[in-house]
Amino acid sequence: MKYSIGVDMGGTNTDMGLVSEEGKIVQRRNISTNAYTELEPYVRDMMHEVETMMKYQHSVDGEAVELEGIGIGAPNGNYYTGCVDNAPNLTIKGVLDFGKEIKKYLPVQVVLSNDANAAAYGEYVYGGAKGLKHFIMFTLGTGVGSGIVVDGKLVHGSTGGAGELGHAIVYPHGRPCSCGREGCLETYAAARGIIQTFYLLRKKSGPRGETPEGWIPDSYPDNELTSKLIGDAANAGDPLALEAYEQTGEVLGLAMANAVTFSAPEAIFLMGGPTKVGEPLMRPLRKAFEENLLNIYAGSCQIRMSELKANEAAILGAAALIKMPRD
Amino acid sequence: MKYSIGVDMGGTNTDMGLVSEEGKIVQRRNISTNAYTELEPYVRDMMHEVETMMKYQHSVDGEAVELEGIGIGAPNGNYYTGCVDNAPNLTIKGVLDFGKEIKKYLPVQVVLSNDANAAAYGEYVYGGAKGLKHFIMFTLGTGVGSGIVVDGKLVHGSTGGAGELGHAIVYPHGRPCSCGREGCLETYAAARGIIQTFYLLRKKSGPRGETPEGWIPDSYPDNELTSKLIGDAANAGDPLALEAYEQTGEVLGLAMANAVTFSAPEAIFLMGGPTKVGEPLMRPLRKAFEENLLNIYAGSCQIRMSELKANEAAILGAAALIKMPRD
Repeated sequence: MKYSIGVDMGGTNTDMGLVSEEGKIVQRRNISTNAYTELEPYVRDMMHEVETMMKYQHSVDGEAVELEGIGIGAPNGNYYTGCVDNAPNLTIKGVLDFGKEIKKYLPVQVVLSNDANAAAYGEYVYGGAKGLKHFIMFTLGTGVGSGIVVDGKLVHGSTGGAGELGHAIVYPHGRPCSCGREGCLETYAAARGIIQTFYLLRKKSGPRGETPEGWIPDSYPDNELTSKLIGDAANAGDPLALEAYEQTGEVLGLAMANAVTFSAPEAIFLMGGPTKVGEPLMRPLRKAFEENLLNIYAGSCQIRMSELKANEAAILGAAALIKMPRD
Repeated sequence: MKYSIGVDMGGTNTDMGLVSEEGKIVQRRNISTNAYTELEPYVRDMMHEVETMMKYQHSVDGEAVELEGIGIGAPNGNYYTGCVDNAPNLTIKGVLDFGKEIKKYLPVQVVLSNDANAAAYGEYVYGGAKGLKHFIMFTLGTGVGSGIVVDGKLVHGSTGGAGELGHAIVYPHGRPCSCGREGCLETYAAARGIIQTFYLLRKKSGPRGETPEGWIPDSYPDNELTSKLIGDAANAGDPLALEAYEQTGEVLGLAMANAVTFSAPEAIFLMGGPTKVGEPLMRPLRKAFEENLLNIYAGSCQIRMSELKANEAAILGAAALIKMPRD
């Protein structure tokens, strides 16, 4: 039977899955990315796990596994070169040529892209974007990533680095960003941005005295705030937490409306930890999106949640890269 | 010999040209768009001019004209439907099905898009974007239009209305725009935006008394200002005019840097009246572009002027639409 491999390479862990044609992860393995400082032993151990999964599945199916390819979602993954280019948060340094290294073990197609692009293409092949030709995926987490599909293909641009909408400047001269500039979407809509928004609101409001259960008490230290905690408080009715997500939704809605002027997508998808809060984010986001959308696009673009399971999206996305038409 | 027809449909005039394979306009004609209120007589007269051009060229070449197709750049032109959809500034109202109407006269391929998309594709087929796969065209005029090429194809999006970067919001809650929203790029970088910037600067500076030749005197009425006049004054050293173009360049540079996060183009092209001022616009624009560009794109995208002649670009762009690969 036909399968593909999806590899989700993170700074800490590398998750791998054997994925069926229907998008089912039939086998999973993982290794510690940060246990390695060289590509060779890392790929050797990765391929050992791949072969283990294939062997095991062979015994389950009673027939050999036909491997369509290996898709890798990785930080700074470059689709054109098949390399990871000097990713700052990896312990394996330099330009990492995965294709070359993997082919020492298996004569198989290797496709690599960054994690947000992989997430977008996973949604297209296995998730809610099936059948769409134009859509955008925003991934919220420690940063804000994005993957853009135009005419059924990921937009990689001239460098391979297209689709960094987390670094589109939404507020000129706004919050300082880790990229060295100011006002990037990410400074408002990534987990840290949500925390900062809450922190600023709390500072402005001053002490609230005793608060109902589920709200964030005055005594809660700033440096232990998380976007999840603020999200839970928002869902428990904490007005400061609700306001923090309201402001986050407003910025995201604006950024998404701007993105529509580029590619007029049929849908914009969202995934990632901070989206789990649900309506406290989505209600203001949808409102701001509609208010900021140019009238010619009215009604043409839906805001939707990813339909892939959170713990499967990265592997499925990586595996989906294999399905992209090549020029 | 092989030719195509380019039709530049404006609110006032419709310019038509017979274009050779090499991008030479060998014949030109025009009719008054606003003399018509119905599509049928408009297309009849247009096709009369087309046939005249073909006949004349037949006599020049000594062989029949082989017509590859008719490309039309029109306000609200929809690539997918081949129709002009309710363009507010046309005297011919409604949804105009050009393909259907033209085929009454000639059994020829008809491709239609909006004028900025046509300009972008003209640059690709006949101008400075030859050989590029990813670029963006900004057209400055009464509005700001844009056309986006990804992987050698115009991005039309799901509705046909992609590429409206003139209505990307650069300053949230900024200047009111004719689209009903606030802070669109167009409110700063279209001709009217430049005039408004100058007007605000002049108001702030107060009377300047006697000014050197070429500067805009205090007595010059606000309602007679044009972007060309301010441009000429800038090139004559008028500090207020220079500052107006400086601010315009800053907004455009920011908007272009944001556009790069989308498609990582190899180049961004500029055309249109307000760009003729030259360095007073281009110097601050390039500076702002570099300052606002995410570091991963450093050096990967050039800001360039259109290489097509101003009075040929619209016809060549329309004719170039014929060359776009169809799905």
